[in-house]
Amino acid sequence: MKVQGKDYRTIWMEGYSVCMINQLLLPFHFTINESHTYQETCTAIYEMVVRGAGAIGAAAGFAMAQACLQAPAAGYQDFIANARKEIESTRPTARDLFSAVERVFDAGLISPARALSKAEEIADKNALDGKHIGEYGQELIRDGFRIQTHCNAGWLGLVDYGSALAPVYLAYRSGKKLFVWVDETRPRNQGARLTAWELQQEQVPFALIADNAGAYLMSKGEIDLVIVGADRIAANGDVANKIGTLAVAIAAREFDVPFYVAAPTTTFDLSCKDGAGVVIEERDPSEVLYIKGLDEETGRLAEVSVCPPGTQARNPAFDVTPAKLIKGIITERGIISPSRESIRKIVR
Amino acid sequence: MKVQGKDYRTIWMEGYSVCMINQLLLPFHFTINESHTYQETCTAIYEMVVRGAGAIGAAAGFAMAQACLQAPAAGYQDFIANARKEIESTRPTARDLFSAVERVFDAGLISPARALSKAEEIADKNALDGKHIGEYGQELIRDGFRIQTHCNAGWLGLVDYGSALAPVYLAYRSGKKLFVWVDETRPRNQGARLTAWELQQEQVPFALIADNAGAYLMSKGEIDLVIVGADRIAANGDVANKIGTLAVAIAAREFDVPFYVAAPTTTFDLSCKDGAGVVIEERDPSEVLYIKGLDEETGRLAEVSVCPPGTQARNPAFDVTPAKLIKGIITERGIISPSRESIRKIVR
Repeated sequence: MKVQGKDYRTIWMEGYSVCMINQLLLPFHFTINESHTYQETCTAIYEMVVRGAGAIGAAAGFAMAQACLQAPAAGYQDFIANARKEIESTRPTARDLFSAVERVFDAGLISPARALSKAEEIADKNALDGKHIGEYGQELIRDGFRIQTHCNAGWLGLVDYGSALAPVYLAYRSGKKLFVWVDETRPRNQGARLTAWELQQEQVPFALIADNAGAYLMSKGEIDLVIVGADRIAANGDVANKIGTLAVAIAAREFDVPFYVAAPTTTFDLSCKDGAGVVIEERDPSEVLYIKGLDEETGRLAEVSVCPPGTQARNPAFDVTPAKLIKGIITERGIISPSRESIRKIVR
Repeated sequence: MKVQGKDYRTIWMEGYSVCMINQLLLPFHFTINESHTYQETCTAIYEMVVRGAGAIGAAAGFAMAQACLQAPAAGYQDFIANARKEIESTRPTARDLFSAVERVFDAGLISPARALSKAEEIADKNALDGKHIGEYGQELIRDGFRIQTHCNAGWLGLVDYGSALAPVYLAYRSGKKLFVWVDETRPRNQGARLTAWELQQEQVPFALIADNAGAYLMSKGEIDLVIVGADRIAANGDVANKIGTLAVAIAAREFDVPFYVAAPTTTFDLSCKDGAGVVIEERDPSEVLYIKGLDEETGRLAEVSVCPPGTQARNPAFDVTPAKLIKGIITERGIISPSRESIRKIVR
């Protein structure tokens, strides 16, 4: 997609380096983060320089390929096996990460060159998946629709196009009038920082809301459709996604607003029977205690504290939305109902 | 209640001045805001130097008394009638404000001295109501309970003791073990700033959570009880309260967590048939676009932007929780069910 008039992907390789748009500095500074080793790429994944299931998957695939390129001939297999564990431990909730790492690792057992080409293939496929999700999903959007989304499942969350926002982009480009309610998505504000930035670049009309306001707007009939992304989808259709998704889904059912999840089929984890099997990452409490943003008076990125010194906090990063609250899952192979049968048919 | 070992109320009069704890600077600076005229008091109410239904009511009563004291003998009635309108327009959702202004205005028709003593009486009564709410409400709290609250309905929200937090304080003082989950309460972070500060001063164990995390904690069985305050309660038991309350109530019902509202009976508005009749205040979008906090690096209170320049936002300040989602309403006259019949019996 375009950034300042130039085509970009979220993540790509240049030689042995992994380049990614630094999402920690958006929307204030647009910079490219370059990591020269798989360890640096792991740090970037852990610190959320890159985030969003698909982009994390591509990043992890590139990291695994980097590890294969770095590995010494003597002890090659041990080196890449250790690297694999390290990469897998960066974001334990992200299904795409595990599948990408596995595939690149298997290719890497043959040769580093095979690992690299597998990682490129995964990234290309992810970009194409975004486009297909957009094509299927845009059929749900009628002229005049007001669509709520949570977190960022835009093109920054995949390699290109996006998942939850891909239908919005394609519907808007096809000439449909629409409006997006953007949840700010505490505690890391990915909606305010990233979704708002993406929509602004594409000139899609939107307004930012506190996460607290969605249920109210639904109660007033001001939301026609919810589309969110997913970090992992269990075999029964339960969806692990950014913390707060569950509350949106419960409110949507209360007010009869159709709630859809958009994700490439790589996000499904058939080994995970249901949502209870998903490990929920608990992140550093400081993400709740401090808020990062631009201090316009000084022009610097500052971190402000919003509570008294010494406050404890709890910071679960994800929650699980049960399948019964989900109207459908938009994949690159079509829109399916969140049931074992439909999922088994579509996920290979 | 105590602040740094000394007894304080949220608001009081000294001579012709209205003094209030400046809640905009909490929890970082503890200062007293003094307003010398009713106009200054109106500004303080509008700017939320004081907030919370009961405290706003007391502030509005004092402002009305100030207006009576300021009014010239010639044109006294016109002056105080105009002042009344001005005071009423500061926070149109707050029921306590209208009832306090009305009672002080009526007393002011007799004499400014009567107005002043009526305003003092309203403030004293509000403090006592908080204590009674605490006594009734603490019976709901069993040893070991983990209680979620939204916004700040602590003693800072009344004149003393609080509404939603009064039961917590009294249960804790009586020796019950308990733990409080504090919603940060975007966009103005009253939970993070004020509830956290209050609980810390009273040494009640608590943790701050993003508003998004409550439903997740409920789904994991980590919340036993929800108590929130109210800004206005309609004749049928529908409750207008801080934006986000509705989403908490819907999630609580989904996970069978008892959801209680605590409020003095002055918060009931029998002229308001149901929640649909409550005017929902839409506040400045900048409250969503910017977040205020302490920049620990520089030691100054800073306002940081969390989204790209030019972002639009929507900022409804309240929502309405329908009576069907409420298990009971804790008042200074006992705990009642949110039904027309129970409300009619208790509200005089």
